[in-house]
Amino acid sequence: MASQAVTPQSVDFSKWYNEIVYKADLAAQSPVRGCIIVKPYGYEIWEAIKDGLDKRFKETGHKNAYFPLFIPESYLKREAQHVEGFSPELAVVTIGGGKELEEPLVVRPTSETIIGEAFAQWIQSYRDLPLLINQWANVVRWEMRTRPFLRTTEFLWQEGHTAHANEAEAEAETLQMLDIYADFATNEAAIPVIKGRKSEIEKFAGALRTYTIEAMMGDTKALQAGTSHNLGQNFSKAFDMKYLSRENTTEYCWTTSWGLSWRMVGAIVMAHGDDKGLRLPPRVAPIQVVAVPIYKNDTERGPVMETITRLIKELRAAGMRVHLDDREESPGFKYNDWEMRGVPVRLEIGPKDVEKNNAVLARRDIPGKEGKQFVGQDGLAARIVDLLNDIHVNMIKQATEFREANIHDVKTYDDVRVLVEKGGWARGWWAGSDNDERRVKDETGATLRCYPLEQPGGSGLCWYTGKPADRIALFGKSY
Amino acid sequence: MASQAVTPQSVDFSKWYNEIVYKADLAAQSPVRGCIIVKPYGYEIWEAIKDGLDKRFKETGHKNAYFPLFIPESYLKREAQHVEGFSPELAVVTIGGGKELEEPLVVRPTSETIIGEAFAQWIQSYRDLPLLINQWANVVRWEMRTRPFLRTTEFLWQEGHTAHANEAEAEAETLQMLDIYADFATNEAAIPVIKGRKSEIEKFAGALRTYTIEAMMGDTKALQAGTSHNLGQNFSKAFDMKYLSRENTTEYCWTTSWGLSWRMVGAIVMAHGDDKGLRLPPRVAPIQVVAVPIYKNDTERGPVMETITRLIKELRAAGMRVHLDDREESPGFKYNDWEMRGVPVRLEIGPKDVEKNNAVLARRDIPGKEGKQFVGQDGLAARIVDLLNDIHVNMIKQATEFREANIHDVKTYDDVRVLVEKGGWARGWWAGSDNDERRVKDETGATLRCYPLEQPGGSGLCWYTGKPADRIALFGKSY
Repeated sequence: MASQAVTPQSVDFSKWYNEIVYKADLAAQSPVRGCIIVKPYGYEIWEAIKDGLDKRFKETGHKNAYFPLFIPESYLKREAQHVEGFSPELAVVTIGGGKELEEPLVVRPTSETIIGEAFAQWIQSYRDLPLLINQWANVVRWEMRTRPFLRTTEFLWQEGHTAHANEAEAEAETLQMLDIYADFATNEAAIPVIKGRKSEIEKFAGALRTYTIEAMMGDTKALQAGTSHNLGQNFSKAFDMKYLSRENTTEYCWTTSWGLSWRMVGAIVMAHGDDKGLRLPPRVAPIQVVAVPIYKNDTERGPVMETITRLIKELRAAGMRVHLDDREESPGFKYNDWEMRGVPVRLEIGPKDVEKNNAVLARRDIPGKEGKQFVGQDGLAARIVDLLNDIHVNMIKQATEFREANIHDVKTYDDVRVLVEKGGWARGWWAGSDNDERRVKDETGATLRCYPLEQPGGSGLCWYTGKPADRIALFGKSY
Repeated sequence: MASQAVTPQSVDFSKWYNEIVYKADLAAQSPVRGCIIVKPYGYEIWEAIKDGLDKRFKETGHKNAYFPLFIPESYLKREAQHVEGFSPELAVVTIGGGKELEEPLVVRPTSETIIGEAFAQWIQSYRDLPLLINQWANVVRWEMRTRPFLRTTEFLWQEGHTAHANEAEAEAETLQMLDIYADFATNEAAIPVIKGRKSEIEKFAGALRTYTIEAMMGDTKALQAGTSHNLGQNFSKAFDMKYLSRENTTEYCWTTSWGLSWRMVGAIVMAHGDDKGLRLPPRVAPIQVVAVPIYKNDTERGPVMETITRLIKELRAAGMRVHLDDREESPGFKYNDWEMRGVPVRLEIGPKDVEKNNAVLARRDIPGKEGKQFVGQDGLAARIVDLLNDIHVNMIKQATEFREANIHDVKTYDDVRVLVEKGGWARGWWAGSDNDERRVKDETGATLRCYPLEQPGGSGLCWYTGKPADRIALFGKSY
């Protein structure tokens, strides 16, 4: 199995990640700078993410729509901070149909501007509010350093855009969508996340406030897995998005936007994977159960295949995604292969199992003998439904314990330096300025990940400035 | 209802179409040349199309993947006919991250080239075949004249790309996907289609053979609603896509591609719509049943809302997509509004209905009193499930009868001229050359839509050349 050998996480996590992405067949490199090809196995995970989010968006009254890929360059310039934030990252179309364009078209890096312009046309009165729109789309940001799923020139994402009559409703929407992201991450991707607010430096270009869900990866680095922005009236003023109120006055709308991308696929890889490969959370796993028949010859093969086919039918009828591995390779090869691909449960059936009406189940989240069980074939589907649920719960537990073990309370800048060097997140009182925050980043590589929404209350002394602080912040290195 | 008045189809079908698209809230104009904004109601139809096709693709063993939006300019040039066909329509990115690119990137007009390059890497031996991939994506073609959904600079579509070991398998795949398109059009969109083969002039740039489903719109023009291409070895040779056969020889693959776009939304509008607006086929309608409560005052309102809410719950439990219109507008306003939006069934409940345990159902496919029925509330859900099915069947019947009445057998060029002028498709023996075909197009505006797969057999005299012909062709004006 030489081809399956990967660099251990402890040796080089970054290298481990890149190898896993390609070896587990999630993605392939493309000839286009910074762009990846998402292969079927990776795309199925993205489809599960899409389905899980789309359902939640629709349940909360959002509708999907689709806006143009191209944005006139002049649009981006209407919101000053927005254009400043995105200008260095733009891909620009200058030729169309063989002719130079009069006004260059930007390939959307995000769609606040073109959607702002549309909303301004669509909204007349308070009756048109709230306007709750989501878009599934590709966007392009010309990144300097790219990594599969985590940071690619083109990526797939969803971007929600909403307009409201007042600030309170916009803020409630912003936080509702943050909750939906957190709920998805926890209950589908088995990734515990910390909900928090971004600092002024780290917020979205043009936002009033940005909220984030921050997840800890297997190397203790932070990954911003989804963001939700209260845009205030910045974009409504830039695009003249007004409404006639109940009181017959003309008011600017309050808008929000929120996005989650295929970066979540990378998060799943890095939050759960181990040196054997992926470990996929059952609810987003393209294959939940892989069935491996074991036989030495054709005499054994017949009854084994008959039994395993019957069991697979039962599992599928119970709604599970099951794959039969009937390749000619050895069981050992197959085990390694499916461990690399992170399938949560392996079902083995051999001649003895046929005889004794038994089955062997091996779980991916618990290695070795501990994770193996010998069970009867009767009621197997119900048992595996429970098992998949157990695996989900156990994966959250493992990830949460790992995270908690790697967040440390800090009192001094030295604490932070030592901790960040060793690996982990620093939690402590913070009252630094924007420049203080930049200095910490320059000196340690750690950024202010968020001010967690859940605060201890009271106040304390800032570990950097020594001044009284009324909130704690999390600092850590990040992707 | 002045705002709802549309130009009648008989006066100007083209104008009718544009007005309907915007008034029924399917799309909005965008500030970007030739691009539309697909609004939620239009996007929901596209989602139904996606779901219906995606299910069929997966059932036949295809997997979704995602390839880069950008294609290096040099790739397009590798297949000579392909680049010739697409060059005039390209949008080109020349600037990325503030710098001029060394090699310009083309925004994909279709992905045969970049996928061909990838397949060449992925395929080693016959065991890797067939490779059955589909992609849901946006593509860009710089069109001269654009129309919402039918021809837009950017559009959403799916493009399937497959590789096979031999010509027979590639041809079988090409025809299988054509059948899937036809099945979808008929059984979901209620649009009867003619399956056929494109002429050499009309085939896809780089294909060996192109197959099409052709649908007749309400003005008798043809719309190519989906195409499936047998690419032969043209792209496998251009991208060096080879495999090691069972016999240990190195062979070029045989590839196919097939695509269907949001043009299908336009087809649904034009195949079924009437002067009152859309008529949506029940299986793709975002709202299948709209419930309109009727009351004069608050005393009546209470029991009416109670009854209608209970009934809606029953319908939803039976799997139907139901919308309650509880706006303050008059019932008459609402009827017009939902007729414009093409909702298949309207459910009305008034005080008398509450009293007598009755309900009123009005179908969109049969206007006036004929389409209205007074029924009991008991078993209403089952009755409407049947009704939706009846509507689907009736809509196919109407569209098929209309089409058959407008296809005429022709024997002479004069027949064709007269027919095309009047409106309709000409069906007749054809043995003309490529240049003959071009002349007919120049002189009449009609193009060779297809050689239908279903042929009468035997032979006859070509209506243009007078020479013996062994197949019939369909000619007509098209979108």
